[in-house]
Parts: sequence; C-alpha cells; structure tokens
Amino acid sequence: MRRILAASLLVACPLLASGACLAAPAPSVFSEGLRTAASSLRDEAVRGTRAFEIVRSLTVEVGPRPAGSPGDRRAVEWGVRTMRELGFSNVRAEKVRVPHWDPGVATGAITAPWPQPMVLLPLGGSVGTPEGGIEADVVAVSSLDELEKTDPAKIRGKIVFLNKRMERARDGSGYGATVPGRGRGAVVAGKLGAAALLLRSVGTDNNRTPHTGAMRYEEGGARIPAAALSNPDADVLEAQLASGKPVRFHLTLGSRALPDEESANVIGEIPGREKPEEIVLLGCHLDSWFPGTGAVDDGAGCAIMMEAARRIGALPQKPRRTIRVVLFANEEFGLSGARAYAEAHAAELPKHVMAGESDFGAGRVWRVSSKVAPDALPLVDAIAALLTPLGVTERGDNDAEGGADLIPMSPARVPVIALGQDGTYYFDWHHTANDTLDKIDPKEMDQNVAAWAAVAYAAAEMPGDFGRAPEGARE
Amino acid sequence: MRRILAASLLVACPLLASGACLAAPAPSVFSEGLRTAASSLRDEAVRGTRAFEIVRSLTVEVGPRPAGSPGDRRAVEWGVRTMRELGFSNVRAEKVRVPHWDPGVATGAITAPWPQPMVLLPLGGSVGTPEGGIEADVVAVSSLDELEKTDPAKIRGKIVFLNKRMERARDGSGYGATVPGRGRGAVVAGKLGAAALLLRSVGTDNNRTPHTGAMRYEEGGARIPAAALSNPDADVLEAQLASGKPVRFHLTLGSRALPDEESANVIGEIPGREKPEEIVLLGCHLDSWFPGTGAVDDGAGCAIMMEAARRIGALPQKPRRTIRVVLFANEEFGLSGARAYAEAHAAELPKHVMAGESDFGAGRVWRVSSKVAPDALPLVDAIAALLTPLGVTERGDNDAEGGADLIPMSPARVPVIALGQDGTYYFDWHHTANDTLDKIDPKEMDQNVAAWAAVAYAAAEMPGDFGRAPEGARE
Repeated sequence: MRRILAASLLVACPLLASGACLAAPAPSVFSEGLRTAASSLRDEAVRGTRAFEIVRSLTVEVGPRPAGSPGDRRAVEWGVRTMRELGFSNVRAEKVRVPHWDPGVATGAITAPWPQPMVLLPLGGSVGTPEGGIEADVVAVSSLDELEKTDPAKIRGKIVFLNKRMERARDGSGYGATVPGRGRGAVVAGKLGAAALLLRSVGTDNNRTPHTGAMRYEEGGARIPAAALSNPDADVLEAQLASGKPVRFHLTLGSRALPDEESANVIGEIPGREKPEEIVLLGCHLDSWFPGTGAVDDGAGCAIMMEAARRIGALPQKPRRTIRVVLFANEEFGLSGARAYAEAHAAELPKHVMAGESDFGAGRVWRVSSKVAPDALPLVDAIAALLTPLGVTERGDNDAEGGADLIPMSPARVPVIALGQDGTYYFDWHHTANDTLDKIDPKEMDQNVAAWAAVAYAAAEMPGDFGRAPEGARE
Repeated sequence: MRRILAASLLVACPLLASGACLAAPAPSVFSEGLRTAASSLRDEAVRGTRAFEIVRSLTVEVGPRPAGSPGDRRAVEWGVRTMRELGFSNVRAEKVRVPHWDPGVATGAITAPWPQPMVLLPLGGSVGTPEGGIEADVVAVSSLDELEKTDPAKIRGKIVFLNKRMERARDGSGYGATVPGRGRGAVVAGKLGAAALLLRSVGTDNNRTPHTGAMRYEEGGARIPAAALSNPDADVLEAQLASGKPVRFHLTLGSRALPDEESANVIGEIPGREKPEEIVLLGCHLDSWFPGTGAVDDGAGCAIMMEAARRIGALPQKPRRTIRVVLFANEEFGLSGARAYAEAHAAELPKHVMAGESDFGAGRVWRVSSKVAPDALPLVDAIAALLTPLGVTERGDNDAEGGADLIPMSPARVPVIALGQDGTYYFDWHHTANDTLDKIDPKEMDQNVAAWAAVAYAAAEMPGDFGRAPEGARE
C-alpha cells in the first residue's frame, strides 16, 4: 500500500499547481514515453469502449455454452469470427478435447411433514438418480467438517443437506470458505452411505436461481446424486427440519455424462514490433455453466481482454512484444483448455513474459497483485502507479494465482499480474440462471479495459521484464 | 396533506417541552381515552409482533396455495388452526367454489437465428399448447394499443411478443400501466390470428423468475397459449429481433383447466362488547400464485391483519364493535371468495361499518386513503392523526378501492379505509418464484400491524361511524 502511494505521486505531482511534491517519490522505472502512452490508453478507455458490445454479442448470439454442448461449438465460431472482426492477427482455434456432461431435467420436493416443491439444479458432473427418483429422510449438517465427523449410522440411506451459508465480501472470500462443500460434499456423504447430497447454494443471493458448479467423484468411490437448492428453498428445508419432525425429500436428476467432445482455445494476437516471440498473455474462458448466458462468468472477462488488446493493436505503433489473447475452453469443468494450452505451447512458455486473466465478472478493479521475480517488483510498482487514477488503490501480495486458467502455466514460472475486482455482487449471479447481460454496468467494464490495456501495454513495451515467477504454485 | 399536518399536532403538541402549539389544531373527534388506547396499541406493536412468525408458519407449513390445489386445502386448514391458536372467536371456514387451473410444465426456446433456451411461465388460465408445442416466427409489439392497431396479416400464425417494460414506483403505479397486456394480450392477439402470446414479465426485477397472473379469454373468442418471459429472457429476445433477422420461437405449455374445487373463506372474530352486530372487517387473501410461497402476496397481509386483530382481542376491554378477520379464498383467479362472502353476508353488509384489506406485501405504510360518507371525513382525519408517529405522512383521496376483495362489497356502500404501503420492491417478487419469506423485513410488518391495530381499534370503538360510502365503485 505504501509503495503504491509513493508511486502514485509520480503521476499526481505534476498536476499540483505549485509544482511542489508532498514527498520525494522514487523515480519510475518506466520512461516518460511509456507512461504517456499507457496513460493515454487508460484515459481513452475510461471514456468508453466496445467491451459491453462484445459481451452483448456473445450472450445474445451464443448464450449458454457449457463444455461440449452445441453452445460451446457456437462460442468457438463466435470467438474466431469476432477476433477477426476486431482486427486481431493469427486468429485460430486450437483444438481441445473436453468432457461433456448433460444437466438434464431436475425436480425436487419436500414430501413430509409439509409437502412443497423445491427449486434445485444438479451440481456439475453429478450422476442422475434412478428413474422415478430417490426419496429419503433428510439429515442436515452445517459444514463439510461436521459431515466428516458424523456417525455413518446417522447418514446411511439418508439425503444429506449441507446447509452452510456463503458470506458476502468485496474480494469474494466467502466463496473459498463454502465451495469445498460443492466440490467434495458428495464424496464425503457417499463414503458415509448417503443416498444423495443437497447443498445450500454457494451464493450470496436470495433468488430462486440455484447455483451450480463443478464437483468430482473419487476414483472407485460411491457416486451419489448431488444438487443445490436455491437459498430461499434451503431456508424452507431448514425451517421444516427445525420443527423436529422427520423431513422427507424426493429428488429426480436427469443428469448424465456423455462422450467427450471437441472444443477449442480461441487465440488472437497483436504481434510485437521488436520481440514478437515474447508473449504477454491476456486470458479469460469462453465456456459457461448451463443455466445462464455466461455474461459475468466469463463473457465479461473475454470482452475486457479482447477490447484491451484491440485498443493496443489500434495504436499507431505496436508495443515491442506480442500481446496474445486466449479464450480458454472449458475452465469450469476441469481446465481442459488451460492444460491443453500449457502442453501445446510448452516450448514457448519460457517466452511468456506475463500472463493475466479476467475471470471475476465486470466489477471495478481495486487491487493489483503479482507473482514475479522479487527483483522485478519495481516494475509492478510502476504498473500499479499507472492504475491509481482508476481508483485502484490497494496492493496485494506477490503470490497471485491470477486465474484458474493460469495454473497449468505455473510450473513454467510464467509471471502473473492479477487485477482484483469488486466481487460484492458477483456471487449473486455466478453459476446461476441470473448470470445475464443486465448484471453488467458498461462503465465498470470500461474501467477494467482501461486497467488491463495499461498493464498489457506496459508489460509489452517496457525494456526489462518480470523475470521468472517464484516456484511453488498455489493450487 | 394539510389536514394531516394539522391533525398530527394534536399528538405532537403535548410533547413540546414548552407546552405551546405552533398552530391551533382542530379538536379531535376522538376522546382522550380512545386516543390513548389506540396509541398504546400502536406503540406496543412497533416494539415487536407475531406477524412475521405467522407468515413464516404459512410459508413453511403450506407454501404455494393456488386456488383449488392441494396447497389451497392445506392453507384453509392452516387458517382455521392458526386463528384458533391465536384466540379468535367464531372461527370457521365458509365454503367457496373455486376454479382449478394446473400450470403444468412450460418450456421455451428461441430456435433461430441464434438458438437459446428461454425461461418462461404460463399466464394464469392459459390453455396449453398441442403436444410437441408451437413453433412460429415472432412479431414484437411495444404495447397493447400498438397490437390492437396492427394489420392482422402481420400477426396471423405468428407468436406475438408484447414487450412493454414495467416502471418502478413507490405506489406501484407501473403495474396498472402494464398489467392490461397480461389480462387481455392473448384476447387481442388471438383475434388477429396469432399462434401464441409471449409477454415481457409484468415486474420490476431482472431475475430469471418470470411473473404470472390472471388472464381471461373472451367467451367464444380464440384461445391461444400465453406465457411470460423473465425480463432477462425478454432482453435476449428483443436483442435477437433487433438484428433484423427472422426470429423463431418454440413454446410448450402443459397448462390446463381442471374441474372446480372446494375452498373456503377462513373467518375469525373479536366480538364487540356493545354492538357485536356491527362489523369492522380486516381482509387479506389466503391463496397465492403457484411459483412462490406467497409470502408477500398475500401471506404478509394475512399475518398483518390476524396479528392486528389478535392484539386488540388481547386488551383487557374489547372495543364496542366486532372485528372480523377474513382470509379470502381465491383472490388471484377471479375473486371467488370475495364474491361468495358478499353473497352469503349480504344481509349483514349494511352493518359493516368499515372494511380494509392488506394485499400489497410487507412494505411500510405511508398513506391513508378512504371511501366514507363525506361528512365522516373528520373521523378519517382523527384516524390518520393516530398514524403520523408511524411515519404515515401522506393522505390519499376519498375514492379508495381498498383491495380487490372489497370490490364485491362496494355496491353495499361499505366504508373503506386503505393504508398505502411502500411498493418500491413489491413487483420484484409479486407472482414470481421469488415471492418467499426472505423478502420480508419483520420490522416493516410490525409497522403495518401497528397501523392496522390503531385503525381497527378506532373504527370499532369510536362513538360515530363512517356512514355509507359514496356510490359508484371503481372497477
């Protein structure tokens, strides 16, 4: 934080009428020319960009695009067409094998003591129920920890209701505290002999729009159906259980795994003028979950990154290095695209001088983090200083993951710049039917474009580089 | 408004330390004893009531209760049981014949130019589609007026998309401007030869929770299927149409009319100590639409009225007249309960000295309106003065309907007191799956209970009465 304040004076001081500075700032490692060009990119983007138009087009012309679905194929076509229309070079679709899971139709109801229909969705990857569904008594637990410690005799044959509420936070930290129940709840409940898992949606909203998202079974373990209730439905189930009467639930899931399909990472570039072999990678993911149109997750991220790069490409002089935008295939259900990219481009990864991903909706950027060689931190300071006029006033640590699609590049020690976005409302919509275009404020997207354009330009133009990131990837 | 300010000084003046009044108020028509008792009821209710507990019980133990459904029968049992538990006298269920319409399962999708699934619900009373559904090109109109003027050649065989957006307003006035499209859209489109009607939801939200509500076919006219798209779905359809390409839509509705069923108006009383034959009626409706648990429409209203009356019944001395709480059957789909009540109690209606209904959610009361004999307006002023400490600062006209269930009593010129509630958010939830308990703030309900308790007590205790309401019911 202190570092940012000092650096920001480099920008702020010349604006003081007296010409005097309140403190003597460290000299920026960036030339005045670089700073002027990056600041101009930033300020012009704040005045208005095409980002909203790009995500509008994706949500209207493609809509839901879970891995392997017809929407996924149309999204790849859209990505290639749109990248070309926006003037990118070397536009291509690099094939990726993806799993294909069909959510089918899901229904549920409390059948006793007070019958009520329940709104729910299958978790991503869940097996279906037998035809006719499953009906059993419900046992509630308040956490995965509590479930793990429960006597199997209390669980066997029952439907486990994992009733943990996600907390709202700007940095989305409530998600990490809750989402393990989604990923592993069915495994733990299955080991104890449960018939099925019902999860309180991992979301901060109170809409009848349940949350879904990836879960995984253990090899050779029990595979029980798993579904999420919307928060208001979970409230009713909780209240019926609080009566002390036995509560029965009927669940039918039509979900099932289908054969793998072909998808693709869609790639486009702004070729560098001096070191085209050095890559600044701007990532996002093209797939979405099935219930919504994937506006905030992750249409917004793709629109932000495509538009940030497009604006750099439209400059009279391109930066020294290449800016590569990658719309990753299937982030949501196993990082297929990111793994395929890291494998196909393994030889090139040492020349990836920076990677960033936008995958946290369209809320304003408020924090800069990094994962770079420690002696390159002054470069991060100089980049952070470029963002202070956007209200990006906080500084994170130097251990940023930067986005799930960057994880497979981590062993190659690709440096990361991460821009933290305001996620206060993100988990009201994330992975639900409510992930639609109307949730995006175009001005907030423009601020993101401004930030990423400045970051990417600086990373592609600056004389030095971030070195290699420290070893030891966060997973 | 002026009248209210003057009257409020009657209450406010004694609180001034100086004992001086800023203006000389008109003397209240209420005795000090009446004012003290009503104010005490009011102030105690603000400190906390059982209203939220009552609506919680209805939504958890009954849930959705559309007319004629199993939920409707359980709601009647709940009403009788709860009225008895709350200490009402003369608790009974007066039989009412109600229509029974089954919403079935509804699905929809844009099939061209860019296929996408659509979230929709049938309008209440809609016929179903043939098995396999209907697929046709879509023609958009922006209002019922525009539809009425459209060349039938443009409509014949098409699916009409009535795309009118409801405006948010504290008094809910956006509803009246939009809802005719729901009630009559299918009639007008059917006359022009349309295959089906799609309506932008009559709601102010942007959730994937479409709105439903009553529609009606004309005797002998075309009966075409009618459904509402959620606002985000309507946005996508609108955007695809804006491309200029032909847009096709596939619609399947499983809705159908079933034989009439038996339901009931549930009634309980606080018998008057001097004039038990004179009735102050507090109404609400017990039925709900099918997608939600009917918390705000109209569980809240029933809880408010039951609790207001219960608190009066718990006083050491009952008021002079009888307070009768009526939970009306089937308000939503044709006012069956209200019509049956007016018929069965026709002989008694001249002795109904006041009627009020709470049917606008749980938002705070901010306005008092009436429909009373003009020379009885000073009594309304005195009642309004009792409510100013609750923040009820506005005064409506003397032409209040008071609630749909009061309409059938209108020919008997039953006087009406109407309390206007803050409906800013009401139409985010009304008639959608999102009408659930979490949308209610218990403190706002308490304010409603306080207001209705004061109104009902005063009307039941005051020496004079409101006379008879002017003729000429609003419809």
